[in-house]
Amino acid sequence: MVKTPVLILLGSESDMPLMQDGLDFLKEMGVTFVLDIASAHRHPEKTAAYAKSAREKGIEVIIAGAGLAAHLPGVIAAHTPLPVIGIPLKGGALLGMDALLSMVQMPKGVPVATVGIDASRNACILACEILSIKYDEVRVKLEEMKEKMRREIDEKSRRLRSRTE
Amino acid sequence: MVKTPVLILLGSESDMPLMQDGLDFLKEMGVTFVLDIASAHRHPEKTAAYAKSAREKGIEVIIAGAGLAAHLPGVIAAHTPLPVIGIPLKGGALLGMDALLSMVQMPKGVPVATVGIDASRNACILACEILSIKYDEVRVKLEEMKEKMRREIDEKSRRLRSRTE
Amino acid sequence: MVKTPVLILLGSESDMPLMQDGLDFLKEMGVTFVLDIASAHRHPEKTAAYAKSAREKGIEVIIAGAGLAAHLPGVIAAHTPLPVIGIPLKGGALLGMDALLSMVQMPKGVPVATVGIDASRNACILACEILSIKYDEVRVKLEEMKEKMRREIDEKSRRLRSRTE
Amino acid sequence: MVKTPVLILLGSESDMPLMQDGLDFLKEMGVTFVLDIASAHRHPEKTAAYAKSAREKGIEVIIAGAGLAAHLPGVIAAHTPLPVIGIPLKGGALLGMDALLSMVQMPKGVPVATVGIDASRNACILACEILSIKYDEVRVKLEEMKEKMRREIDEKSRRLRSRTE
Amino acid sequence: MVKTPVLILLGSESDMPLMQDGLDFLKEMGVTFVLDIASAHRHPEKTAAYAKSAREKGIEVIIAGAGLAAHLPGVIAAHTPLPVIGIPLKGGALLGMDALLSMVQMPKGVPVATVGIDASRNACILACEILSIKYDEVRVKLEEMKEKMRREIDEKSRRLRSRTE
Amino acid sequence: MVKTPVLILLGSESDMPLMQDGLDFLKEMGVTFVLDIASAHRHPEKTAAYAKSAREKGIEVIIAGAGLAAHLPGVIAAHTPLPVIGIPLKGGALLGMDALLSMVQMPKGVPVATVGIDASRNACILACEILSIKYDEVRVKLEEMKEKMRREIDEKSRRLRSRTE
Amino acid sequence: MVKTPVLILLGSESDMPLMQDGLDFLKEMGVTFVLDIASAHRHPEKTAAYAKSAREKGIEVIIAGAGLAAHLPGVIAAHTPLPVIGIPLKGGALLGMDALLSMVQMPKGVPVATVGIDASRNACILACEILSIKYDEVRVKLEEMKEKMRREIDEKSRRLRSRTE
Amino acid sequence: MVKTPVLILLGSESDMPLMQDGLDFLKEMGVTFVLDIASAHRHPEKTAAYAKSAREKGIEVIIAGAGLAAHLPGVIAAHTPLPVIGIPLKGGALLGMDALLSMVQMPKGVPVATVGIDASRNACILACEILSIKYDEVRVKLEEMKEKMRREIDEKSRRLRSRTE
Repeated sequence: MVKTPVLILLGSESDMPLMQDGLDFLKEMGVTFVLDIASAHRHPEKTAAYAKSAREKGIEVIIAGAGLAAHLPGVIAAHTPLPVIGIPLKGGALLGMDALLSMVQMPKGVPVATVGIDASRNACILACEILSIKYDEVRVKLEEMKEKMRREIDEKSRRLRSRTE
Repeated sequence: MVKTPVLILLGSESDMPLMQDGLDFLKEMGVTFVLDIASAHRHPEKTAAYAKSAREKGIEVIIAGAGLAAHLPGVIAAHTPLPVIGIPLKGGALLGMDALLSMVQMPKGVPVATVGIDASRNACILACEILSIKYDEVRVKLEEMKEKMRREIDEKSRRLRSRTE
Repeated sequence: MVKTPVLILLGSESDMPLMQDGLDFLKEMGVTFVLDIASAHRHPEKTAAYAKSAREKGIEVIIAGAGLAAHLPGVIAAHTPLPVIGIPLKGGALLGMDALLSMVQMPKGVPVATVGIDASRNACILACEILSIKYDEVRVKLEEMKEKMRREIDEKSRRLRSRTE
Repeated sequence: MVKTPVLILLGSESDMPLMQDGLDFLKEMGVTFVLDIASAHRHPEKTAAYAKSAREKGIEVIIAGAGLAAHLPGVIAAHTPLPVIGIPLKGGALLGMDALLSMVQMPKGVPVATVGIDASRNACILACEILSIKYDEVRVKLEEMKEKMRREIDEKSRRLRSRTE
Repeated sequence: MVKTPVLILLGSESDMPLMQDGLDFLKEMGVTFVLDIASAHRHPEKTAAYAKSAREKGIEVIIAGAGLAAHLPGVIAAHTPLPVIGIPLKGGALLGMDALLSMVQMPKGVPVATVGIDASRNACILACEILSIKYDEVRVKLEEMKEKMRREIDEKSRRLRSRTE
Repeated sequence: MVKTPVLILLGSESDMPLMQDGLDFLKEMGVTFVLDIASAHRHPEKTAAYAKSAREKGIEVIIAGAGLAAHLPGVIAAHTPLPVIGIPLKGGALLGMDALLSMVQMPKGVPVATVGIDASRNACILACEILSIKYDEVRVKLEEMKEKMRREIDEKSRRLRSRTE
Repeated sequence: MVKTPVLILLGSESDMPLMQDGLDFLKEMGVTFVLDIASAHRHPEKTAAYAKSAREKGIEVIIAGAGLAAHLPGVIAAHTPLPVIGIPLKGGALLGMDALLSMVQMPKGVPVATVGIDASRNACILACEILSIKYDEVRVKLEEMKEKMRREIDEKSRRLRSRTE
Repeated sequence: MVKTPVLILLGSESDMPLMQDGLDFLKEMGVTFVLDIASAHRHPEKTAAYAKSAREKGIEVIIAGAGLAAHLPGVIAAHTPLPVIGIPLKGGALLGMDALLSMVQMPKGVPVATVGIDASRNACILACEILSIKYDEVRVKLEEMKEKMRREIDEKSRRLRSRTE
């Protein structure tokens, strides 16, 4: 695997706590990443530069999280052939519906792979699924994670059944 | 008044018919404009270049119309201190709600002056109201338009009353 | 610049804390303003009088914030050729969607330049962008603000990168 | 009964066909009405004048229909102690939800009695229900209408049952 | 005025605190009322009986508040020619949108005069506006209330202006 | 099986074409039904009588379809211990969302088993699933239908694959 | 009655508190149930196995509660001819609207009997209504519950009236 | 590149015309695919079998399109570590909002990479972006496509400018 295949860009430092769940997953998977702040509107040049140079630096998947009129992943996708995953964030009056529609309804030609509102862990799992088509060690770990999810449900089920029977 | 104070950018040629109502208003007002196609996602460099150079070319107000995840006015606003008016367009499954939220819910620091869905005429009236704080001839014409709207309603009212009484 | 180019009208005293962020921005910019309470429904005469006399008093931009069926900016726009900026406020059951639609979906002929829900700062930035087409000192300060936003992101980015690397 | 107890104001001549169903009901009931065009935004003075003088002219109920950011009934209610019935009209991208919220979510102190989207007949029935607390002949006719609705359903039921059995 | 012209029915005892604002208004106006619990679904016979006998008992306006699939005012309206005012209540996951649509979108023939979500005071003002077409003393008090609202805004405005100038 | 275990009530004759898909399914299943018109608001007594007497007449499941503020299934459920299935119908401005929320958000104590908008066939399948817990011949036929759905997809799949390969 | 006619599956242990209200109702009714954890996505095989074997084990009604993209009841319904009741749960940004639409809008052929958001008690009442067509003792208890609801409202009404009169 | 890296599954044959735009893109890119019908609810075993065996057959990305309560991509994602792209389809009363929320709001652990409503071309572009991290020839073609989009806008812009100047 390349050294740092994932680039994560957040619209604001205050989005960091919400991203933690996804970062933990990447660490479990042994997938390294760069994490930075970017803004489609307050610092467009930096955002464009990041997007344009990502592939050359070895990045293979980009994750971008933003709230409100959440243009960040779309603007990044405009500048790179890499797959871009968007996380719509809830932080505003409209519960994240604004961010969701601002990401998922991208015009023809420039898709954003959108996950659920605030779903940073799912964004990172999706990034690993994408990497897994190239790196077999990632696929093996994803299958272990799926197996672990099954075991956890079996375990919870056993606990619940013993308690209620 | 400067020669061409208004720049109008549309996300697609197919949005032209919808813009016509606004263009007609600008012509009535004697306000000249440049009209062009731009795309925040399919041609980001051209869009940024347009936005960055607008003020120097004498543009004083920018109008941008787009549908779906309608980032165009926000991306333009990122690159210019000029006021940017956004027209959310209906052309998609969600009736224009996606475009409306993608424009109006801009993050702190970079506002878009959003008008109603498909409201190209209101966008152009707003552009003239902005110009009117600097150019008295525009203000005078706006007041005439307001007076004309009143007379039209009086006229329609007279016609309706005579028909129903 | 004229002495007091901005008039801000709020639907209720309880909206004041929310407006503060915008007022702070105007003070930073050195743009003076009048702030008052008005109501399209509980005191329509005062509201109409305010709107009608604004231009003569030297006002160049009006900002109006209201919640629920938020008619205030639309009713003001009916009485003046000045640009009117609307801030939809969240204060009710429907998260501000009612106020947003009551402002942005204005009928043909009478636009309201709508900003995001509770976005008082963006409303005041938009007011300054409008003034900037006439007053060069405002434009210079807006460009400084944009530059400052970029520097802040660079700074945050540096801090975050040093912490995570 | 007073000669003309009902005043009906529409935002636009194009709303007339939709009002017809309600007007037919008033005619069946023998309740006379004035029908006119008004606009909260394009002719605010006329609208205010209508509202202010309505009671003195003998009007007892006002019905106002409008689409988009439908301020008309709210603006009328601001100027009169008479009950004001609002009909939100569908004519726009958002299916009438904008008009519904712009009417029903009125601020404390100035209610609008809102009926369903495009429901002109229900608006006129409600107007008659209001008049019926004062004019017994209206109440008697309303009870006949209710009885007639029951008979119609019985009749349709009989027809349907005979066809399917 | 009749002794007790207003009947208020709530879907649940827990809706009482929310109704208080409206009850206070009726007391200020000197309009007496009956307040009771009713349920379209849990006790349909009692609800129907209330609705059917209301007019004979001298009731002239009925107010019904309910949340969720809020059928109460519609079911009452089915059984009486009296005007029925509906207050959609917020108490559930969907912020009151379910209650609003369940009330306002009544089928042709049986209107409900719907006010805003949780707007118990506006429901009671509307009830008085309806009574005012028959009882002049109610109209006089409504006009005093409107005058008082204006004075309050003037007062708040004076206070705010003196503080900020 | 009892002679006629299913009662179907529609809010209006115009809803008949939409119900046809479900009626065809019941006929395929050999489950007989009564079909009639009822209205929670225009003929509440008939609706209540239907609901109250249904069980004694041998009815075991009730299906009710209605649009707008669709109270019909809820009002029926208030009067019977039988399971009541609600079909929200699209026929109005709000795409059936009003009918869906008016049915599914029933208050505690009186559930309506709600199916999708305009989903008359699914309502009838659900009715048969309910009957199948008592009548084994219905269960056998449901399992055959499920098997047939699988075979149809296999068949379509074969056709599509042969065409595209 | 069979020993355990109801199977309840929840998407997560954290949904248990919300289910309690429904479980209490089943206990009052003397209807026994199996309660377990299942997941359409994290443990699809277990879910399918549960659904496929339910009928043979004597289960007659299945209740499934889930939040977000709530596929659980639909996936269960795919594998059994038994009636499946779905409870959309609120636990996410979108107030439960995502779960509601993911359940109620099932494709033709595989219905889910959907109840209100978080409405675990109504789901259990509906399960009993379904059982009541086969087991007379359940019907008798349901009628007692309905009678009790009426008495409770009568009681609350008496209390409220004595307090306010 | 592997022989057939993309598997496309649609919920119904009637979704085929809508998919054509995406299939054309894959052909332009020289990326071969398997296209088939599947249903999470009407034929769950076939869908599970497809998902489980996909990776062994050399599939690297799965695209699934469905309408209404669109569980297909989520159910597939439950059975495979491959990235799954979901296309919400509009075909129902709710404009595709039901399908969008049923896909994008997947629970933690099983993401679906959701694109816009009816956006089959964007789904196929996203599939190629994913493949491009492994196959350089796909990346080169994606960059050519991005370049072509820019040239098309330049061309349209020239045409429009020459027409309006």
